[in-house]
Amino acid sequence: MSYKVGMLGYKFMGKAHTNALKDISVFFPEAPKPDLEIIGGRTEDAVAEAREQFGFNRYTTDWEEIVEDEEVDIFVNLGPNFVHEEPSIRALEEGKHVFCEKPLAEDLESAKAMAEAAESAEGQAAIGFNYRYVPAVALAKKMIEDGLLGEIHHFRGLYLQDWLVDPEAPWSWRNDKEMAGSGSLGDLGAHSIDLSLYLVGDIESVSGNLKTFVDERPLPGEEGTKPVTVDDAYTMQAEFENGAIGLFEASRFSTGYKNENKIEIHGSEGAIRFSLERLNELDIYDRSDDEEGFKTILVTNPEHPYIDAWWPPGHVVGWEHTFANEWCTFLKTISEGEEYHPNFQDGLRIQEILEAVSRSARNRKWVKV
Amino acid sequence: MSYKVGMLGYKFMGKAHTNALKDISVFFPEAPKPDLEIIGGRTEDAVAEAREQFGFNRYTTDWEEIVEDEEVDIFVNLGPNFVHEEPSIRALEEGKHVFCEKPLAEDLESAKAMAEAAESAEGQAAIGFNYRYVPAVALAKKMIEDGLLGEIHHFRGLYLQDWLVDPEAPWSWRNDKEMAGSGSLGDLGAHSIDLSLYLVGDIESVSGNLKTFVDERPLPGEEGTKPVTVDDAYTMQAEFENGAIGLFEASRFSTGYKNENKIEIHGSEGAIRFSLERLNELDIYDRSDDEEGFKTILVTNPEHPYIDAWWPPGHVVGWEHTFANEWCTFLKTISEGEEYHPNFQDGLRIQEILEAVSRSARNRKWVKV
Amino acid sequence: MSYKVGMLGYKFMGKAHTNALKDISVFFPEAPKPDLEIIGGRTEDAVAEAREQFGFNRYTTDWEEIVEDEEVDIFVNLGPNFVHEEPSIRALEEGKHVFCEKPLAEDLESAKAMAEAAESAEGQAAIGFNYRYVPAVALAKKMIEDGLLGEIHHFRGLYLQDWLVDPEAPWSWRNDKEMAGSGSLGDLGAHSIDLSLYLVGDIESVSGNLKTFVDERPLPGEEGTKPVTVDDAYTMQAEFENGAIGLFEASRFSTGYKNENKIEIHGSEGAIRFSLERLNELDIYDRSDDEEGFKTILVTNPEHPYIDAWWPPGHVVGWEHTFANEWCTFLKTISEGEEYHPNFQDGLRIQEILEAVSRSARNRKWVKV
Amino acid sequence: MSYKVGMLGYKFMGKAHTNALKDISVFFPEAPKPDLEIIGGRTEDAVAEAREQFGFNRYTTDWEEIVEDEEVDIFVNLGPNFVHEEPSIRALEEGKHVFCEKPLAEDLESAKAMAEAAESAEGQAAIGFNYRYVPAVALAKKMIEDGLLGEIHHFRGLYLQDWLVDPEAPWSWRNDKEMAGSGSLGDLGAHSIDLSLYLVGDIESVSGNLKTFVDERPLPGEEGTKPVTVDDAYTMQAEFENGAIGLFEASRFSTGYKNENKIEIHGSEGAIRFSLERLNELDIYDRSDDEEGFKTILVTNPEHPYIDAWWPPGHVVGWEHTFANEWCTFLKTISEGEEYHPNFQDGLRIQEILEAVSRSARNRKWVKV
Repeated sequence: MSYKVGMLGYKFMGKAHTNALKDISVFFPEAPKPDLEIIGGRTEDAVAEAREQFGFNRYTTDWEEIVEDEEVDIFVNLGPNFVHEEPSIRALEEGKHVFCEKPLAEDLESAKAMAEAAESAEGQAAIGFNYRYVPAVALAKKMIEDGLLGEIHHFRGLYLQDWLVDPEAPWSWRNDKEMAGSGSLGDLGAHSIDLSLYLVGDIESVSGNLKTFVDERPLPGEEGTKPVTVDDAYTMQAEFENGAIGLFEASRFSTGYKNENKIEIHGSEGAIRFSLERLNELDIYDRSDDEEGFKTILVTNPEHPYIDAWWPPGHVVGWEHTFANEWCTFLKTISEGEEYHPNFQDGLRIQEILEAVSRSARNRKWVKV
Repeated sequence: MSYKVGMLGYKFMGKAHTNALKDISVFFPEAPKPDLEIIGGRTEDAVAEAREQFGFNRYTTDWEEIVEDEEVDIFVNLGPNFVHEEPSIRALEEGKHVFCEKPLAEDLESAKAMAEAAESAEGQAAIGFNYRYVPAVALAKKMIEDGLLGEIHHFRGLYLQDWLVDPEAPWSWRNDKEMAGSGSLGDLGAHSIDLSLYLVGDIESVSGNLKTFVDERPLPGEEGTKPVTVDDAYTMQAEFENGAIGLFEASRFSTGYKNENKIEIHGSEGAIRFSLERLNELDIYDRSDDEEGFKTILVTNPEHPYIDAWWPPGHVVGWEHTFANEWCTFLKTISEGEEYHPNFQDGLRIQEILEAVSRSARNRKWVKV
Repeated sequence: MSYKVGMLGYKFMGKAHTNALKDISVFFPEAPKPDLEIIGGRTEDAVAEAREQFGFNRYTTDWEEIVEDEEVDIFVNLGPNFVHEEPSIRALEEGKHVFCEKPLAEDLESAKAMAEAAESAEGQAAIGFNYRYVPAVALAKKMIEDGLLGEIHHFRGLYLQDWLVDPEAPWSWRNDKEMAGSGSLGDLGAHSIDLSLYLVGDIESVSGNLKTFVDERPLPGEEGTKPVTVDDAYTMQAEFENGAIGLFEASRFSTGYKNENKIEIHGSEGAIRFSLERLNELDIYDRSDDEEGFKTILVTNPEHPYIDAWWPPGHVVGWEHTFANEWCTFLKTISEGEEYHPNFQDGLRIQEILEAVSRSARNRKWVKV
Repeated sequence: MSYKVGMLGYKFMGKAHTNALKDISVFFPEAPKPDLEIIGGRTEDAVAEAREQFGFNRYTTDWEEIVEDEEVDIFVNLGPNFVHEEPSIRALEEGKHVFCEKPLAEDLESAKAMAEAAESAEGQAAIGFNYRYVPAVALAKKMIEDGLLGEIHHFRGLYLQDWLVDPEAPWSWRNDKEMAGSGSLGDLGAHSIDLSLYLVGDIESVSGNLKTFVDERPLPGEEGTKPVTVDDAYTMQAEFENGAIGLFEASRFSTGYKNENKIEIHGSEGAIRFSLERLNELDIYDRSDDEEGFKTILVTNPEHPYIDAWWPPGHVVGWEHTFANEWCTFLKTISEGEEYHPNFQDGLRIQEILEAVSRSARNRKWVKV
């Protein structure tokens, strides 16, 4: 069985997804095979070069060509946030499966429209929260389901980068409210929130804070500056439906961290810790142990999630592997006619929380989600 | 030069301070010598035994005897929070120096009365925030003053314990609002807040959350239970005067952590990390390094704060050493007639913040401090 | 420019090298393109399936077909150690480039024959020491060349696994002297020795110890057991030409470690530490720093070796990436007519050291290499 | 019950032991009480000052006065290695208990004489291997006795310092063969060897290497240099009686480490790791765990060895605490008339191994111990 893939976007995310799709046949030979049919982007030279480099059959500079292409089974939307809505909805209307990067949209209105379109669509509409597919995170999920933590009391989710700490770091669409919706909140916080919903449960209310440390940045390759209209960092307190409380933060000003996504959960019976910088490791704490202590599991054993497809014990994997694990799961799920998660509904829930954080930050008080 | 010490309290804190006082002559021979004159507590047998064990000259079951004793130069108040106010004020009125454990009081009113008494007193009124005296924290302070961090953007302060995660853990005065004022907030959070004020600067506004996971606990040694009227955990978002934002948490339900006091600060030029479980280490990050990375300083070199008094490089110290460093500093400061910090005024500021956190938690909105 | 690849072996190493070869076009588009022409192995069903899974054009069960195939430019020899000699030499005689996995051969005689054949061959003869291509190791190399360490005093190289600690773990060719030459020594120790030569310099004399903890093991899928005729673990003391001293160990009985390859080097000016379990990190120590301490560099910045080809800062890579870095280097080197290292001469030097360790272990005294 | 202590030496070790002796009454009130009777040293001003600082009743510049003093129950010998023999034997002859710092002597002959004297003495003769008294090490001992490791296969013992890496670091008695016997071997290696005997069992044969990197050093406070006649570093391979193999190293040139004493043991059922820089932690690995991984035990719980005397969970201890634990054990043991270990016989065994290492290094072959 095979699926023809049409992809919009060819830069960072384009490379990550292409690599994952190419990995499927080598590492997951039992999964449906994705064929790299067509790739699209705005700049002809660049997209033509990407087609060559990535091994797609064709390219286009017009996204409509992809979503309308009868050959294409799966539309992969890797555009900036403000390009998520229209192409994704059009592809769903054309009967295709859609895989769209997170966050679902640049605002709640768009997200709702997308989720609505997904509700009535024939194809499935996936959202790309790849960190669910870190083997250590998947193992944490399994252990939590098996009762390691008992009743959960605390969640901490920090996503820390530092690429904007230099005030001379150039302006990009990620600094613009119109195009990105929000800054660190939607870009990084969305991951922490997704993991909290995945591992702990739904959030009931939030108190947020948004902070912009540098108000304008130089335009890249041009004279002059442009205003930063999104948050450089956010913090959030949360209350979960099950009584747990949470603490969240993301920042592009966390000097010293390049891409650190940390989670920590404490329950009545145990605890877990995870850090993306050391993504092959999961720390667990089990109160029922005779001797207490955090145990560092090197998540590279064949019985660990996804590992069987990869390498022998101790041969660690990297960040990119999350995408292959994600695609393997998505392809198997749709080929078996099962319902894939996280989907646009899940993405909408996260968007509602992002929106609530912004609202709370404006009104300086807690907000029910 | 020597000072006669009268101490109220002989349990955990009594042992910690006695040990520190006995260390002075061996490790800080140049400091004024503290003489262990009198120790007090309510239970005669126990306090008599403590006198013997600790090497005090006399004991009493009546705190008034201590504060009125003409021999006593320094009154050390290690009682529960609700016993801070009256004896401390009386001792100040008697012209003594006072050293009182944190938090300053069980509520803001008492704290104000204490600070007021200290204002007009002859003696100095110290509050015991011992974590300022961890060599690694003192080194952090020095490095921050020397500009390591530049403009500070982020502070994180977590104080995590797990001794109450078992619902059968017995009730104590620390679970009672009347006696303790608050739970994790005043007991643990006060330390994080003190460090934030010390290392970052004053706090302008806060948004807090208080959580009690277990509502009642068994009475120790008796039938029946008693309500828990304080927080098992708190979280807090903060805004500092200098534009930094902060995230705070303390919990007695953080399964896996016994006494973990973590701080992390990011600035425009660098970052620092500290963890009490590894208190001999300070992690620093300096953006101006040719090669980026967190550097772990083993803070045991003679040029590091307080270390000269202790052991050669690599011969690590422990938690108790903070108290000896604290006493050495306090004794020298008062003997030189300099103004000691943290004092009751500093303690009052922290009490105002604790109070603001509680208020914010009740009203579900941000509060100016 | 492109090279047609013929590969012997399709299991663990086959998958690792195939994946690397497929990565070249996506991640190193400027490098010569390897074409997956033919793959060989003994079991027809399996090799046919591997051909499909890996995407080779053809397959064969006869290695001679590969080395004689006029289409093939590069012969990749991934067979067990005792299959290294004959096919590699034949391929060299046929004018092909050869890439052979380590150790060079199962004994010194074979290794010499191979190095001799390589001397007079038209093509280049590479040996696969992939750990040179860990970005952190390559960065260490660069830093050492730039003088970080000064005069080197100490090298430590430990390669620790535990897959044989269970006495019921089945017998395999890796336990057989005829087929493998040695056990942990040649399989794992060869890596440590290669890194020591690469980073420190040549070894002058060694004192070795070989140990077999379990003398016989159950045959897989059959009744009965077979003797273990190689070492389960080795230790070695070494003296380097430059005056440094070394300590080496490898074991398949190091309970708790799956594939831990640790190196540590101390010099007059600094030190480095590396651990394969955390292969994205390099710890360095620079005596000239104002504040001493080991600094952990997350080796994921664009200026770090090979990283530019992969992902943005903080997006960590895995074990498999070493092979792609290795192939990119090998392909570029041969296409530019430069001399590639490590080659069969380098492999021979390591084989001499392996042989000296065995001799020293037998004679219980130091041996000049 | 109480013992009068006479101490020879008042510098680094004098301070460490005095502090420990003063801790006894506060932290181990149930133990016999040591009285600080007399302290001795060669330089009158300094020893007089030490008496004052440490709180001894009397001082002397003549060691014979101590060992002959009828008041003295325990003679504590903290002099340089070449001063161990005579005063210790004299004190034993005078019927006193003796506590002598390690290594037992500067050579095997002296060590034998000391052990012989101890055999026939009335008092007990202890040797000061304080690292047995790190709570984490004592816990490791207990776990090994309880079967955590099964059959032991591997021991690694590294003791790493860097205080001599600077060639301008001044000459001291520790660089002199006459006075110290050996360098890193006896000073640091003795500790690793003691721990190996304690935790693994007796050593059967060794292969050693000694290295002096800097041949002469400047005299402190004078013109000129003096030859270094001992090792700056040693390495050693060992075979234990029980079939385990070992790897040892100590160095004063391990740039980056100040006082790092690492041990690692692997057995058929589990493994342990310990590092003195993080002496409150013990890492254990238990093959029978459902999920594999090294678990970091924070050895600060009341059920852990010695901890009950100190602080609540998570309130970490330091290097100095090993001496108090040691003294508490020694005092209780002699007061109960039990046989104390490690004693001079244990010290002699270690001296035999030190001697064997030197012999092996000279002869370049393995030596039976």
